[in-house]
Amino acid sequence: MADQSISWIAADWGTTHLRVWIFGPRGEQIAALSSADGMGRLSPEQFEPALLSLIDTYLREGRQTPVIACGMVGARQGWVEAPYDAAPCPPPGANSAILAPVDDPRLTVRILPGVSQSKPADVMRGEETQIAGYLAQNPGFDGVICLPGTHTKWAHISAGEIVSFRTFMTGELFSLLSERSVLRHGISSDGWDGAAFAEAIDDAMARPQTLAADLFSIRASALLESLPPATARARLSGFLIGLELAGARPYWLGQHVILIGAETLSNLYSAALMAQGTQAELAGGDAMTLAGLTAAFESSMKETP
Amino acid sequence: MADQSISWIAADWGTTHLRVWIFGPRGEQIAALSSADGMGRLSPEQFEPALLSLIDTYLREGRQTPVIACGMVGARQGWVEAPYDAAPCPPPGANSAILAPVDDPRLTVRILPGVSQSKPADVMRGEETQIAGYLAQNPGFDGVICLPGTHTKWAHISAGEIVSFRTFMTGELFSLLSERSVLRHGISSDGWDGAAFAEAIDDAMARPQTLAADLFSIRASALLESLPPATARARLSGFLIGLELAGARPYWLGQHVILIGAETLSNLYSAALMAQGTQAELAGGDAMTLAGLTAAFESSMKETP
Repeated sequence: MADQSISWIAADWGTTHLRVWIFGPRGEQIAALSSADGMGRLSPEQFEPALLSLIDTYLREGRQTPVIACGMVGARQGWVEAPYDAAPCPPPGANSAILAPVDDPRLTVRILPGVSQSKPADVMRGEETQIAGYLAQNPGFDGVICLPGTHTKWAHISAGEIVSFRTFMTGELFSLLSERSVLRHGISSDGWDGAAFAEAIDDAMARPQTLAADLFSIRASALLESLPPATARARLSGFLIGLELAGARPYWLGQHVILIGAETLSNLYSAALMAQGTQAELAGGDAMTLAGLTAAFESSMKETP
Repeated sequence: MADQSISWIAADWGTTHLRVWIFGPRGEQIAALSSADGMGRLSPEQFEPALLSLIDTYLREGRQTPVIACGMVGARQGWVEAPYDAAPCPPPGANSAILAPVDDPRLTVRILPGVSQSKPADVMRGEETQIAGYLAQNPGFDGVICLPGTHTKWAHISAGEIVSFRTFMTGELFSLLSERSVLRHGISSDGWDGAAFAEAIDDAMARPQTLAADLFSIRASALLESLPPATARARLSGFLIGLELAGARPYWLGQHVILIGAETLSNLYSAALMAQGTQAELAGGDAMTLAGLTAAFESSMKETP
């Protein structure tokens, strides 16, 4: 029986999902696996079994395979708390990682901390590793990184450090409003209207204070004017992203912005920024997560030769 | 067996609840009843049985007792659609009411329409009857009425007409965020912090564009600073009501505002407006609903003597 050699394992462990990548000795990716065993549904003693259920067959007796993890797995309610590094700071690497308690002798698990900020109060867990990945691939980068998602982050990067950042609940507001509010009756789960999106961005940036009224007007337009559900969806997205862009203006104005996240959402941000005269460049979310975890693995190897 | 004489029945029939009041021949209130048979869970043929289950024992053979209803019961998905009157218009009265189809010969049911507006698109169903009630008790009133609730309305009233209005989804946003978003982990279901509320009002009015970031800061403050859950609740409420007040400024600036709604919520609006130098006067929500339905009943009696 061939013993396929494993070098290390990367884990992106968020609230709702666990995703792992298995790497061979020359850095080649051997497998990518995932499960719905997110941090949100696990108690501390359930993390190791959840991880083993994905990677058990790749582990070998007599050697310890290192796992490097990032995300909510390091929250207070996670496997073990990896206390935040405080910004301004470099994105935490292997030297800040916390060892998780494991029973299986074939395994070591290092969890990367998130980053906190005191004024204004803010936190990230996972995005700092994507930033580390971008910096690993673009040494010396100074500028602004935006990470669109459920809780979109905007970060100022300078001299290898996260100088300051701000989180906007834009994605979560979109989910709540499109799926659970009165607006859900007139909003499709897919489809798009680019013109309605652009117009809503402009409206929200010009008059952010009327957001809660603009939202209700989506419902009223559905009732009175049979607003198409795909247009309603684009308008909702535009109002929320427009509000965020108005609030994040100090981050993007006059800057070249790096967008790290899922492609469809990043493209929306890119189009909205372009309309404001700001250039944006996309870097894949998964690719940056892996690059950040890889950088942490490589530096951990230097520490413990 | 004493036959207690019934004159008419008032019904406030919203999405989640049905509330009825039984009146005697001299206008005296004989009973107030309610059920969870809101419009949201009934198909058209279920409305009459839902109403009868509350009022059946008050009806008499050989005579038709009139019921006057307002609210979502007149929506397209309700008992029978009572098409909107278009603002500017007086709050719809008995002459605009729609007769609902009934099988029981002891009953007539009139449903009052809501009011629509085309630019910006907006609708109300129920609040117009509260406005009618206020106007019935304050003939000749000109000014601004605010009706705080799930979907707060601001209305300009002049010469007996609803001239224009605007709906803010403030109450629904508060429910979604406090009960279903990531903020729910650090927010109590009761308790209050008046200073935090006032500060959040000021913050949101000064910087409405950072709402989605200010919301997340509630979560971050819970994680980093152990923000008390009652303070988190007041801060969330303040951010959302402050955003609304910033957007509704053309309504209240330099005005004396009439607040029609539940007492606790109306008191919050009153305090927030007072801090902006605007006087507000409370009129009870139920009292105004009943006054509006009573005015509609009385005018229907004049029409059909």
